[in-house]
This record gives sequence, C-alpha cells and structure tokens, in this order.
Amino acid sequence: MAKKLTTREQDYSQWYNEIVQGADLAENSGVKGCMVIKPYGYAIWEKMQAELDRMFKETGHVNAYFPLFIPKSYFSKEASHVKGFAKECAVVTHYRLKDAEDGSGIVVDPTAKLEEELIVRPTSETIIWDTYRKWIQSYRDLPILVNQWANVVRWEMRTRLFLRTTEFLWQEGHTAHATKNEAIEETKQMIGIYADFAERFMAMPVVQGVKSVNERFAGAEETYCIEALMQDGKALQAGTSHFLGQNFAKAFDVKFATKEGKKEYVWASSWGVSTRLMGALIMTHSDDFGLVLPPKLAPFQVVIVPIYKGEDQLTQVSEVALKVKKSLEAKGITVKFDNRDTHKPGWKFAEYELKGVPLRLALGTRDLENGTIEVARRDTLEKETHQITDIEIKVENLLEQIQDNLYKKALAFREEKTYKTDSKDEFNKLIEQGGFVYAHWDGTSETEELIKQETKATIRCIPLDAKGEGGVCLFSGNPSSKRVLFAKAY
Amino acid sequence: MAKKLTTREQDYSQWYNEIVQGADLAENSGVKGCMVIKPYGYAIWEKMQAELDRMFKETGHVNAYFPLFIPKSYFSKEASHVKGFAKECAVVTHYRLKDAEDGSGIVVDPTAKLEEELIVRPTSETIIWDTYRKWIQSYRDLPILVNQWANVVRWEMRTRLFLRTTEFLWQEGHTAHATKNEAIEETKQMIGIYADFAERFMAMPVVQGVKSVNERFAGAEETYCIEALMQDGKALQAGTSHFLGQNFAKAFDVKFATKEGKKEYVWASSWGVSTRLMGALIMTHSDDFGLVLPPKLAPFQVVIVPIYKGEDQLTQVSEVALKVKKSLEAKGITVKFDNRDTHKPGWKFAEYELKGVPLRLALGTRDLENGTIEVARRDTLEKETHQITDIEIKVENLLEQIQDNLYKKALAFREEKTYKTDSKDEFNKLIEQGGFVYAHWDGTSETEELIKQETKATIRCIPLDAKGEGGVCLFSGNPSSKRVLFAKAY
Repeated sequence: MAKKLTTREQDYSQWYNEIVQGADLAENSGVKGCMVIKPYGYAIWEKMQAELDRMFKETGHVNAYFPLFIPKSYFSKEASHVKGFAKECAVVTHYRLKDAEDGSGIVVDPTAKLEEELIVRPTSETIIWDTYRKWIQSYRDLPILVNQWANVVRWEMRTRLFLRTTEFLWQEGHTAHATKNEAIEETKQMIGIYADFAERFMAMPVVQGVKSVNERFAGAEETYCIEALMQDGKALQAGTSHFLGQNFAKAFDVKFATKEGKKEYVWASSWGVSTRLMGALIMTHSDDFGLVLPPKLAPFQVVIVPIYKGEDQLTQVSEVALKVKKSLEAKGITVKFDNRDTHKPGWKFAEYELKGVPLRLALGTRDLENGTIEVARRDTLEKETHQITDIEIKVENLLEQIQDNLYKKALAFREEKTYKTDSKDEFNKLIEQGGFVYAHWDGTSETEELIKQETKATIRCIPLDAKGEGGVCLFSGNPSSKRVLFAKAY
Repeated sequence: MAKKLTTREQDYSQWYNEIVQGADLAENSGVKGCMVIKPYGYAIWEKMQAELDRMFKETGHVNAYFPLFIPKSYFSKEASHVKGFAKECAVVTHYRLKDAEDGSGIVVDPTAKLEEELIVRPTSETIIWDTYRKWIQSYRDLPILVNQWANVVRWEMRTRLFLRTTEFLWQEGHTAHATKNEAIEETKQMIGIYADFAERFMAMPVVQGVKSVNERFAGAEETYCIEALMQDGKALQAGTSHFLGQNFAKAFDVKFATKEGKKEYVWASSWGVSTRLMGALIMTHSDDFGLVLPPKLAPFQVVIVPIYKGEDQLTQVSEVALKVKKSLEAKGITVKFDNRDTHKPGWKFAEYELKGVPLRLALGTRDLENGTIEVARRDTLEKETHQITDIEIKVENLLEQIQDNLYKKALAFREEKTYKTDSKDEFNKLIEQGGFVYAHWDGTSETEELIKQETKATIRCIPLDAKGEGGVCLFSGNPSSKRVLFAKAY
C-alpha cells in the first residue's frame, strides 16, 4: 500500500493498470484476455446495474434471458453482421472430454463432434430475432421491449482490463416495433438514458451523436453513441444504441399482421453498455493517489477509521463511531467501520484513498473529549474537523457536493480540451496532443479512412446538437454542412 | 388461452410443459438443450435472486465474477472433479470464422485453433481456486466469502425446461477458510439459508440432509442438500452445499501462513442453487388451471381487471381502479392494472389464472355504485365481494394467508406422502407409487447401487434430523443405525 502509484504524467497506461489492480477492481485470469472482476470492482458494477435496470424498467422494459450459444447458421443470416463479428468468435466444436488412450491426461473426445458448430455469443441479435419470430404474429404483440444482462465473448488480440477483454459483462436491449418511427424513437430514448446515467451517476459528461457509416454496428442502419473524454485526451465510446431497420426481421423472417391485416416486417433497435463503463469511470475521475469514485456509485460512501491505543480506547471510540454509522445509515448513506486491529490508521488512510472512498471520517479519543470528528474528502483531499453533532447532515451535503464537483471538474477538463479548427496543420497538432476536435468533413468514408491513416483520429460521432454551419473538409477540400467530432479513441 | 391444460392425472409431464409454456415462463430455443427464459419467468427468477442475494450479503458474502472459460489443464487438476464433469463439457477449440473458399458460406478457420482447449464452465471451482492462490498468503486474507451469479453449461442429452438444461443460470458460492471447522460451519450455514429461502419464500417444505458417497459433488468431502417432494411423488434436489476439504487447495497449491507462521492448505466450501428452483416452484404449487405463485415471488401480486362497456364506463372504473392500485402500492404490494381493450375480462381472468397471479380484483360499474370490489384468490379459487374501503388491508392480509396456505398445503401433501417401512415388498410398492420413504440402509455404496437398479429409488439424503434408531437394511439384511430418505428423483 505504501508504494506510490506511477503518475499519469509518467505513464498513463501504467497508472491505469496500477489503479485497477491496487484498488482491487479486477485482475487478469489464467485465461488469455479474460478478467476476474474482484469484489470491490464488482460492487461498483452492481451499483451501475441497479441504476440502469431501474431506468430501463421505468421506461417499460423487462428482462429476459437467451442462450449463450448461437448456431453458426443463425450467425450467417445477416450478411454485414457476420462480417463484423466472424473474426473474433469463440467456437464450440465438441461436447465431451475423455481420458487419453495413452494415459497422458484428458483430451477432447473426437467422437463428440457437433454437427453444427456453436458460437459463443458476441452479441445476441441473431438468436433473439430467431426467437421473436415465434413471439410476434400481430400488431398486438408489439412493441417488445426486452433487455438481457449477460456475458459476451469477442476474441480480442490485445486486451486491457475493463476496456477491452475477451469476455465482458453487459446488458443488451432488443426491441421490436410496428413502425420505423417508433423504433427510431426507442433508439434515441435509450441513448438519452445512457447519457443521463453517465452524467448523473458516473459524473461523466458525454457527447451524444450518431456514428459515421464506417463506425456503425454491423447490421445497423444508424448507430447512436455517447462519447466521453479521458484524462489522456483520448475518447471512449461509453454506450451505443442502434436502429436496426428491418434487417434482422428480414434475415429471420419476422413479420406481423397490421391492424389492417397486412403482413409487414418488424422494426428493431438494440442497445448496450458494458463493464467498459468501469474503465471510463476510473479514467474520468482518478488521480495520482488512486481511484476517485462518485458517491452515487461507491460501494460504501463513507469509511470510519478509529484512532486508538489499546483495547479500552478502541471500545470508547467504537461506541461513538457506531452511533455515527447508524445515524448516517438512517439517511441512506452506506458506511464501513474499519476496526481491524491488523492495520494502523495511516495504512488504512492510504488504502481508502487508493480505493476512492468519497469521505473518510477519523475518530480518536481526543475527538471524544472535544465532540469532534475529522472529515476528509477524497476528491479535493481536503481535511476538516467538524462538530460531531449533526454530522449526518454535514456528510449528506458533502456527498452531494462531491458528486457535483466531480461532474463539474470533468466537464471543465473536457471543455478545456475541446477544440474547433479549420486548419489541417492545427488539426494534426491537436489530435496529436489529445482532446476533442470539431472539424469539417465531407461526409465520405474515403476521407474518413484517409484521416484515420494520417492522424489516427476517428470520427467519434456526428453530434446530435451540431449546428448547420457551412465549411470545407479539412482533408478533401470538399464542402461540408456541419462539424463532426474527431479524436483518438480507446 | 381458452384451451384447457392437460391435467396432472392425465399426464404430469405434459401438464408441466404446458404450464411452463402457457404461463410464458420459458421455451426451447433453436440451440439444442438451451432454453429462452421469457420475461414473466425471468421476473420470478429476479425475485429469487434478490432475496437470495440479500441473504448472502447479510451473512457477510460479496459478489465477484470469474471467467466463463476454463483451460483444460485446470480442469484436470482435481481428479474426481474432472471425472465428474468430463462427459458433459462444451469445448471451445477455435477463435475465428471465415468465408469458405468454395463460397458455400461461413466456416471455422482451421488456422485459428487454440493451443489449449477451453471448457465452458460447468462449475467454477478450478478457475476460482487458481485465482485464490494469488489472493491468499496469510490468515489475514481469510476467510474469503465470495459468490458469483453466472451461467454454466453441462451438456445434457435429455433436457427439460428449468429442470435440466444444457445452459442454466445459477449462483455459486466459493469460500476459503483457515480451519476445517469454519469451512464446515459455512457449508452448514448455507444449506440452512437455502432451506429458509425455500420454505419462507418459495413456500416449499424441504428436508435437509447429507448425500451418500455416491451422490456427492465431484471433489467434495461432504455434500449437504435440500430435497423437496413434487406432486407426482418424485423428489427434487433444490440446492446443495459442499464441504470441499483441502482438495482444491491441494490441487491448486493454495496455502496460507498461520498466526504461528506455519504454512497450511486452505479449507473450502462451495454451494449453489439454479434456475432449477423455477421447476421446483412450478411443480410444488400449480394445479390443473395453471401456475400458482406464492405472493413473495410473484412478479405482480395483484391484478386489477376492469369490467366495462364503452369508453365512458372504462374512464369511471379506471379512476377508482387506479386509486386502489395506488393505495396497494403504498403498502409495498405490486399491482398490474390490465386495461387493454384488445381482450375481454373473461379472457383476462383465464390468463391470470394460468399465470398464477395470487389475487385478482375485478371492478365494474355496479361495484362503483355499491362501493364494492370482487376479490379472487388463485390458491383456493374462491371469489368474494368486499367493501372497497380498506381494501388494501384486506389484500395485505390475504396475501399473507396465501403465502401461508401454500406452505401448509405443500407440507400436508408431503406428510401424507411420507412413509416409513421395514418391509422390502412395501418399500418397492411405496417407491413405485411415489413419495418419500424412510428406510434402513447398511451404509454401503454397493447396496445403494443395488436398490437403485431394482427400484429406481436413490438415497435423497441422510436427514440432518435423523434419530439414531437401530434396524436392519431392507436389501442386505446388514445392521443400520438410522433411516435414510429414499425416493425416485428428478
């Protein structure tokens, strides 16, 4: 614990890894590219899940569960979809192991070969639309507003904890609608929910927009996204919502009878966020002392550390500490009282700093005499001594302030690092140094590809709030009607 | 909806399938042996999860997440474990698909063969104990009390919705302890929690016991279980908790330094319940009219159906219905108001009967005049008209009565079908007709196997509350010190 972290300045990527591991969030497993999400990290993910799940249910969605495996033939039915995912699929080919005949151990039983290979789902559009065919006959069966919490697998060659792993956890919504317009409205509603979640709970400002054709989800007609700016100036795509048109309905022959008795293909959306949000959360707020968590997602918002010598003092301090804990909990604040006698207070302070606990309360015998308690904010690292009376109101206010401050700080950082340019040289320089760059683009995939090759920047999105503004594409010189958002990205 | 169910009498197994499908709980998918859990079924599972998760956390457990894939070499490290699971493993051998060279479609890319095959987890002891080696150095790191909610895969040849599926959802707890005694206490605590959950929430009485050597989990030193009796007289194992000794610690070399500085292997438990509980729930309470749900696990406990002709009446009735809904919700009761104009009240009544909603309220214009409301209990099928004043108290009481009544009814059924015998002929007859049979057994695996072959009965458990009682094994004539519980089982 005493070891200092690598600073962001020294090595941003190393800093990130040290926080993920030092704060006990996750670690690499013995399975290449697959992570173990440790209890403290998983507790944050559970908080995210609970909030998102509530938001989904409030907007009429229900949860369900579809198979992990997708028959290869299903996978092939939507042409652009299979093209997008074929190169990163885990394939199940056999269903039994046996003892090797030469006694050398356990081997795959060659007689237990599957007639058709099964793909471990990288996303579930195909298996779900194969199911929806059975669920949908008439307009009365629509809309279907289903979400699933699940694990998915995409075989990645270069992985990083939370940001890009072979297996990850996510939710995937899959909705079916009678009209194109309703499906588009749903797609937009969900990206709005993601943005709301990112800003209000993760305290992470995001830009909402649509992807260029090149960056669209494989099988979508339009992909909406939220994009956040990390502290190293790189963008992170934090959630996507896809308008799928009738592509999957056509691939899986899902038609419904309209009120007028006509048969029509069903319209679709799909949308998802994943444990990648954990990476975004870490990189948005953390500092050189460790993780910084917004109170709304912290597994415990307050830690109380007793300062004492000997059993008697611990008993005295504990009595008051537990009273404080109880009064905080009565306000719905989550509290840990760390009375372990195996570690010194200083060690505990460093641990909770590294773990990003929003508020640390320290209570010693002198405090008991004075009726005080020491309060330390993780976001500003400020320490103050307060009267212990009404501490629950003080703490409640501070937690709100921290949540608010983290959002404002992240927003200020993003605004500072957001640029607008009409010069190609400056564009190259800005992209090189990192940040969001709004620039004109001629709307073609060719130019987009060229820019990517020259600068490593991608179009993060065409922002929803982009104003019509005539201009000239920086790279092709062709006309452009509005600026799009460029950045290097995770 | 109008179609009547096959009765239990006519064909129990068909009755079960019709309820699972008719009540929209689950269905078979296009992937052999894998089910789709539909929203209504999943909502019940979510209720189960929420209660169990709360019970686990109250006893100090935390959640985490470990990889879906297990390298074949890990799997082989605990000899009896691999023996138990090798025959039913889904094996990932490749990580990429490609276009077939002859243009015939998508094929597995033979150049993307894994060096070591990966097993889709059938249970996670091996991957978790490989991880615990890194987490445990000293007694200070113990105990570890971790649970994971996950999907697992066991390749089953004969599957049945919820009861036996290739992929299923479950939770698996994996704990690590410094002493044998502490690990055994944990194992017992968890089977106690499962029993408590089954009885208080599922309204399903269970017998707690330990398994015979033959029926133990592969890798365990002792397996505790809860066993319930279904309406067809067959037993269903509803949850297990295993004392693993030091088996996995030895296989994965997990040692800790004791307070005295000695190195010792760590002691372990693991425990789990799965979506199989859904099958148990369905078969414990349902009747020939459909599903019957205990109020504590019903997705909505009350449905209000308006009885009306024309828009005006609907408006009048809705106004009162929504008031009732609100007053019920204020008491924490979950309510659905079904004002769909696409279906008649009679159709709705049948639907909610099939779906097992504990209470149905019907409200028409005549009720408005009289200040009344009709209340129908799903468990007894009784209908009564009540004054609408204080309906929330009436409903609250009724829900408690239903929960209680379902448990008592199931318990009475079990007691009626529980037998004790010292005659082999009677034993054979009782097993044939179905039920729990307490009989003497000589304690050997040979006799157990013989009984199974002759009668299809297995030893469900050696009950924890079995009294010492000298006797003679029905089959071998050898001495026995207590009765064990026999039944045919799912």
